[in-house]
Amino acid sequence: MSALKKTAITSAPIHSLIRERWSPRAFADRPVEAEKLRSLFEAARWAASSYNGQPWNFIVATKSDPENYRKVLDCFVEFNQSWAKSAPVVALSVAKLKFEHNGELNRHAFHDVGAASATLTIQAEELGLAVHQMGGILPEKAREIFGIPEGYEAVAGIAIGYPGEAHTLPDHLKAPEVAPRERKALDSFVFTGKWGKVLPIVGGKA
Amino acid sequence: MSALKKTAITSAPIHSLIRERWSPRAFADRPVEAEKLRSLFEAARWAASSYNGQPWNFIVATKSDPENYRKVLDCFVEFNQSWAKSAPVVALSVAKLKFEHNGELNRHAFHDVGAASATLTIQAEELGLAVHQMGGILPEKAREIFGIPEGYEAVAGIAIGYPGEAHTLPDHLKAPEVAPRERKALDSFVFTGKWGKVLPIVGGKA
Repeated sequence: MSALKKTAITSAPIHSLIRERWSPRAFADRPVEAEKLRSLFEAARWAASSYNGQPWNFIVATKSDPENYRKVLDCFVEFNQSWAKSAPVVALSVAKLKFEHNGELNRHAFHDVGAASATLTIQAEELGLAVHQMGGILPEKAREIFGIPEGYEAVAGIAIGYPGEAHTLPDHLKAPEVAPRERKALDSFVFTGKWGKVLPIVGGKA
Repeated sequence: MSALKKTAITSAPIHSLIRERWSPRAFADRPVEAEKLRSLFEAARWAASSYNGQPWNFIVATKSDPENYRKVLDCFVEFNQSWAKSAPVVALSVAKLKFEHNGELNRHAFHDVGAASATLTIQAEELGLAVHQMGGILPEKAREIFGIPEGYEAVAGIAIGYPGEAHTLPDHLKAPEVAPRERKALDSFVFTGKWGKVLPIVGGKA
């Protein structure tokens, strides 16, 4: 009963936590220890951000608190609810849209929430946990349910737990769960000098 | 001549790569090896993204290519140019704003670029490199200089190199370089049930 590995096939060496991290839909029926959960948000806390504005916020619930768990799940689109409900912890990331220091719009609010969430996922991998982030949420429903104030906006859903087994998923989700991870080649997105001109050191081996 | 350490004072254990990562302005006068640079973008490549859209792109230049290096530097605001010019590698992240699979706006384009860039910084820490990301860039100038097409947008600047020493910086940048890293307390941004209600496991120790 070991967790499914989906090691990235890389074109250059990368740290094992980055290489092994992936986004499962199957979670084990096992709670996440409070101290581990705390470490996840502590990791997010130390991400870099524009003007150190730290625009990230998280609304979190565990299955041990069914009422609040249900409220978070209700903010996911139906498809995501169908599998995320097996995760022992669900969360929403929420961006603060303006800077505190001058009240101006923070063009990098979503960017920095993404940085914090990515850092959280790497910490999760270190702790043997798996994270699946979801774009498919209902931001206005989240605003209503949780009273998210003006100037803030729900960004993404996050399912957290110990990795489970693909056979526990509904049939139509079994194949994607075990399919290899795929990415665009490096030479399709690392340029120099002008758009589309490949940076020489990334060419050739991707 | 050892690099300045600014270990995060954490309220819960986190991985050393996250704990030690910070954003210096002083870089050593030493090039970044091609294979290490390649590993940085390879790490970015494996970030999670909405619909696996991988909206991240990078325009990169090293000091060994002065013309293209200058072009990237010119897209940073003047303040950032003043210190980033000591970094052996400079880059711009660029977001693809629409999904390939349906042509619709990708609400998470900046979010996912932030995830890729954060992953890059953690890989950099692993390789003994330092990264300083900058919100302060000139996206329209970048569009013009590099021919960034419609549907894409320059997001952030990135300075990459081996860490340097604070005394090499202009006077007004020396104090911030050695100041401790600061973050909001966990209980100010991790909620449950409703906005502002602290998730119990993060209260008390932050």
